[in-house]
Amino acid sequence: MTSLDRLLETHPQKPTTNFDAVAACLSACFECEQACTICADACIGEAHSDMLRQCIRICLDCADVCATTGRLIARQAQPDEKLWRTALEACVQACRSCAAECARHESRHEHCRICREVCERCERACMELMAAYPSGASAAPRH
Amino acid sequence: MTSLDRLLETHPQKPTTNFDAVAACLSACFECEQACTICADACIGEAHSDMLRQCIRICLDCADVCATTGRLIARQAQPDEKLWRTALEACVQACRSCAAECARHESRHEHCRICREVCERCERACMELMAAYPSGASAAPRH
Amino acid sequence: MTSLDRLLETHPQKPTTNFDAVAACLSACFECEQACTICADACIGEAHSDMLRQCIRICLDCADVCATTGRLIARQAQPDEKLWRTALEACVQACRSCAAECARHESRHEHCRICREVCERCERACMELMAAYPSGASAAPRH
Amino acid sequence: MTSLDRLLETHPQKPTTNFDAVAACLSACFECEQACTICADACIGEAHSDMLRQCIRICLDCADVCATTGRLIARQAQPDEKLWRTALEACVQACRSCAAECARHESRHEHCRICREVCERCERACMELMAAYPSGASAAPRH
Repeated sequence: MTSLDRLLETHPQKPTTNFDAVAACLSACFECEQACTICADACIGEAHSDMLRQCIRICLDCADVCATTGRLIARQAQPDEKLWRTALEACVQACRSCAAECARHESRHEHCRICREVCERCERACMELMAAYPSGASAAPRH
Repeated sequence: MTSLDRLLETHPQKPTTNFDAVAACLSACFECEQACTICADACIGEAHSDMLRQCIRICLDCADVCATTGRLIARQAQPDEKLWRTALEACVQACRSCAAECARHESRHEHCRICREVCERCERACMELMAAYPSGASAAPRH
Repeated sequence: MTSLDRLLETHPQKPTTNFDAVAACLSACFECEQACTICADACIGEAHSDMLRQCIRICLDCADVCATTGRLIARQAQPDEKLWRTALEACVQACRSCAAECARHESRHEHCRICREVCERCERACMELMAAYPSGASAAPRH
Repeated sequence: MTSLDRLLETHPQKPTTNFDAVAACLSACFECEQACTICADACIGEAHSDMLRQCIRICLDCADVCATTGRLIARQAQPDEKLWRTALEACVQACRSCAAECARHESRHEHCRICREVCERCERACMELMAAYPSGASAAPRH
């Protein structure tokens, strides 16, 4: 159990159900922010960075969206269900678009291949968190 | 014309249509990030801050969502249409939830009243930007 | 008086002295975050973006540093003096480095010229805020 | 080796020296951002959150400073030495102040104890990265 999982466990309004899905999504979002930030910078540093323009941009966008989604998920207590859902949908879209763009360059750039894998993992974690809270039900018990 | 409007004007792939909607939304998002950050801190500092818990949280969420949306909009060239749309939807929801919560406290706290107005302005600017790009059409010309 | 200035005015622990320096620095930091984000993206979009690598990177760094400094300043109450000072020093350095790099490209790229001006303005606002709180004195009255 | 370490390894201008110190500091900054975000929210949710005001604020500040420092470190190529150093100094200060404040509450709140440990780890990682680049020397080889 990581320090962050233990931290979530000690939250006075910790998620009583779906703890694992919350912890996994939180971790995946921050991993993806870091991967996209590194991949954008690596793309900027490549010899033909002008061929990687779109990849740089979507990596920067995906890093920002993942960072914000991670922070929303970290705020455990009384989340706003509608906001959670739209934020997770934006994050799924960011990861999907970034993975698709990175896939186009992964035969030449290993950083794009790794970044694509991290984006796919984050997309899955967001989908699983959304699935854990069926639409119409509250995203989490309100206190 | 502000420095930021002039900066947008000099972008090599500046928005050829809807320039005003883009500039207005960009400015509204960053104004809202600041307002929500100040309002959260003011709420933390109030005598009965435990009554303002939900307000503090939604202000922090709204600040993060607006910051990310503002950055996405600032990246003018080749925006990913689906990502733009889901991010704007999340921003509309954040502003709406934050305005609703601030409205509950605005008779006692002037900072909540001002923050509510700024959130409503940002929500409107996001809606107008979405309306400027009808669904199905590209969010912006791709180069 | 802007909405944000009025918000600061209604904060329960608003800065009793140096209100103008605080408000000016807050505004300058967020303006600079936006300018650097737009300039980075404009540089990425230029024909010879590989010549602008260092400019893209320092713009991204400066945007992040200004965003964080702006948020710290927005949290008015009981700021940690040492943290304030080191954060303002990092922000001065980010603005200075970014202005110097943008200056190298401003004859060819108008967005670099405008971004350089905004960085210089932010650097000045940070210096003035540091000057308003002589070292050794508390950054602000603690409550 | 984590995905992020492998990503750093594939960067075209990866740190030739001090790779481990860079990777460790990057990871510590993002862990600290998450810990401080969770601890701030947990403090807001406690019964006597008005006693935790200062803790909430410094956690929010520390989260923002760590996020920005992490992003600066993730941008491997041609870092600006002076900016790196001032940013790391601000991060050391943020972690130190946050650890000191959390320590005051850790007998009552386990999340403060864990957060204090994470802050101390991040402070150490920043110090070690600064030590790896003696002042006066370039922060990293410039290409």
